[in-house]
Amino acid sequence: MDVFSFLEAVRREGPVVHHLTNWVTIYDCAQVVKSFGASPVMAHAPEEVADMTGIASALVLNIGTLTNDLVESMKIAARAAESRGIPVVLDVCGAGATPFRDQKCLELLEDTRIGIIKGNRSEIARVAGVDVRTKGVDAASVDGDLAAIVAKLASQRHCTVVMTGREDLVADERKLYRISNSVELMSQVVGTGCMAASVIGTFAGAAPRDLTAASVAGLCCYEIAAELAAERSGGPSSFKLHLFDKISALRKEDVVSRLRIAC
Amino acid sequence: MDVFSFLEAVRREGPVVHHLTNWVTIYDCAQVVKSFGASPVMAHAPEEVADMTGIASALVLNIGTLTNDLVESMKIAARAAESRGIPVVLDVCGAGATPFRDQKCLELLEDTRIGIIKGNRSEIARVAGVDVRTKGVDAASVDGDLAAIVAKLASQRHCTVVMTGREDLVADERKLYRISNSVELMSQVVGTGCMAASVIGTFAGAAPRDLTAASVAGLCCYEIAAELAAERSGGPSSFKLHLFDKISALRKEDVVSRLRIAC
Amino acid sequence: MDVFSFLEAVRREGPVVHHLTNWVTIYDCAQVVKSFGASPVMAHAPEEVADMTGIASALVLNIGTLTNDLVESMKIAARAAESRGIPVVLDVCGAGATPFRDQKCLELLEDTRIGIIKGNRSEIARVAGVDVRTKGVDAASVDGDLAAIVAKLASQRHCTVVMTGREDLVADERKLYRISNSVELMSQVVGTGCMAASVIGTFAGAAPRDLTAASVAGLCCYEIAAELAAERSGGPSSFKLHLFDKISALRKEDVVSRLRIAC
Repeated sequence: MDVFSFLEAVRREGPVVHHLTNWVTIYDCAQVVKSFGASPVMAHAPEEVADMTGIASALVLNIGTLTNDLVESMKIAARAAESRGIPVVLDVCGAGATPFRDQKCLELLEDTRIGIIKGNRSEIARVAGVDVRTKGVDAASVDGDLAAIVAKLASQRHCTVVMTGREDLVADERKLYRISNSVELMSQVVGTGCMAASVIGTFAGAAPRDLTAASVAGLCCYEIAAELAAERSGGPSSFKLHLFDKISALRKEDVVSRLRIAC
Repeated sequence: MDVFSFLEAVRREGPVVHHLTNWVTIYDCAQVVKSFGASPVMAHAPEEVADMTGIASALVLNIGTLTNDLVESMKIAARAAESRGIPVVLDVCGAGATPFRDQKCLELLEDTRIGIIKGNRSEIARVAGVDVRTKGVDAASVDGDLAAIVAKLASQRHCTVVMTGREDLVADERKLYRISNSVELMSQVVGTGCMAASVIGTFAGAAPRDLTAASVAGLCCYEIAAELAAERSGGPSSFKLHLFDKISALRKEDVVSRLRIAC
Repeated sequence: MDVFSFLEAVRREGPVVHHLTNWVTIYDCAQVVKSFGASPVMAHAPEEVADMTGIASALVLNIGTLTNDLVESMKIAARAAESRGIPVVLDVCGAGATPFRDQKCLELLEDTRIGIIKGNRSEIARVAGVDVRTKGVDAASVDGDLAAIVAKLASQRHCTVVMTGREDLVADERKLYRISNSVELMSQVVGTGCMAASVIGTFAGAAPRDLTAASVAGLCCYEIAAELAAERSGGPSSFKLHLFDKISALRKEDVVSRLRIAC
């Protein structure tokens, strides 16, 4: 896969990426999109979400601090995305933590057309129907074969599924990719998971015909930038600082030389 | 214009600046006010916004993540500001992106007394009645003479109008200023526009008798700090880090030697 | 007091700390908890707050950007915390600024079981019934003996009271501690007060049997990390960057050698 060509498409086209996301990491979601050279927009009023999706190239939904009203706005936005044929990413942030959260994930998956489901191992397992006990929004241990869970959910929902972790798994109904680019420091910074969903949405917005390839390319670029940032960092906070700078300056040789994907 | 004397007034008086703003950049809006030596406060419940405005020296409204309820609270706060005679800044963030946003801008301009309207070129053009197509919250191209648009809106609304960009334009019914202090890195950081409105509110709070001069002075100080920060930065994230530090430490000689205003 | 043993308990147990907090500093509240080695979670929908509190070891409430709905969710969460016997921290952010805010503080204190009340000098004085005039969310001057005010409120409410400032005061019905670890830079960074409440909640979650000792230990660790960060900082923004890194890396010798508590 020519991962760098996906990044070039993002930088060339600068897609508008509309978010309905959580209030914790909303700034970082916007900044990561901008750092990649695209245009983030965040809007959640039910009166305008369809119109805002109407000028966007991708829609990112994140249920981290969901309410009933926010999920209703997400549904309106997702239907607008479907009618225009633009990709929708759903970050199932905190799935498994409460019955309300599980119920709302299910509603979004049933009522709207989600192109990419993204979560950590326990969140994805939960959405796939595995009985897991979570620790809020942090990943909890999951019994069983993670690749099988990812592939199963992709088949169930006819979409791309992204499970982030030390090794990321990305699958659709036909293929499964494993990405080994990653740094431990990412787990010490709040919002790295939410940002991954925004990155995937950004790449999907610039390459909507192959959501799985776009997801793989986006994750690789993001995590290679993280590797470069970690080399200069004294802790989680300086790591995050360098992360945005490295994303802005990411070069082809860095991507090519560091890429660690298995199919 | 003795720009530095406005900064001295801010530092001496430490005005309380009440915000009803968006959830994306709310932290940075607060931090930029504090970095200038003033006191930010953010509150949006309809039951308390009038009281909170009652202890403030300026009010900043930003519609970036507006809802109907939030705009109703903005109206209550703006009326309280009017009754006390303190300045109100309206950041028309994302104007032109959706009909709902345009409608709410109009309502705020019609129903309340806005002292300073602030936006990027496409937002200001839209509020002035020019037909523009925006890219969400990022500036889009605008046909026509920007200075004429700014001056026209200032006359229409009998207020100060601030159009930010590589060259900022600040006008009221009598004068128009051009500020050339600026750095390209600002456009790569989410929230620099929102922060500009908070800075303008801060300076207006300390110098409420001449809102145009206060806007010019605030923008100049902010952008000179940005120039100083950019000289030490390796990318957008380190730039933002240095920006706050440079604002806190801004000295008279920096302001005087770097000032680039034309009238 | 063996302060470091409290930090070891936090790192060993990694408590889940549920927050209903304000939209300004919500990210920093999450990051400070994570930096100490614990798991933050933020959720406020009335349908799920009881369940989320059900998987948490502590609950942190902060009224910085309160609404009626948010306070109702806080009450539900606080009742769930009480039924499970986990500690609840209430940050009375902005108390005294508006009658609405005072009323909601009172409701939370009357209707739920708060284990730790935390605020700056004017906020705590206000909650204790002293007539103070605040500057929004920044500390205002208070007449009278601060230690007496803290001790009185602790007796009134049968809980631990934390008053932050250059010297922090922590009291319950039997004891009063004075902590002198502090740096001036903290007052120049938005959110250091909110983060203090999250730190206290984190330590209380790992040591729920002695909330006063947990509060003292948490504050000391946080402020010692701040002292270490300040030594490397060129201003408020770089200070905040180093703060998170120093928290992550805080060592026993730093805590032991710098501890400044009087009882």
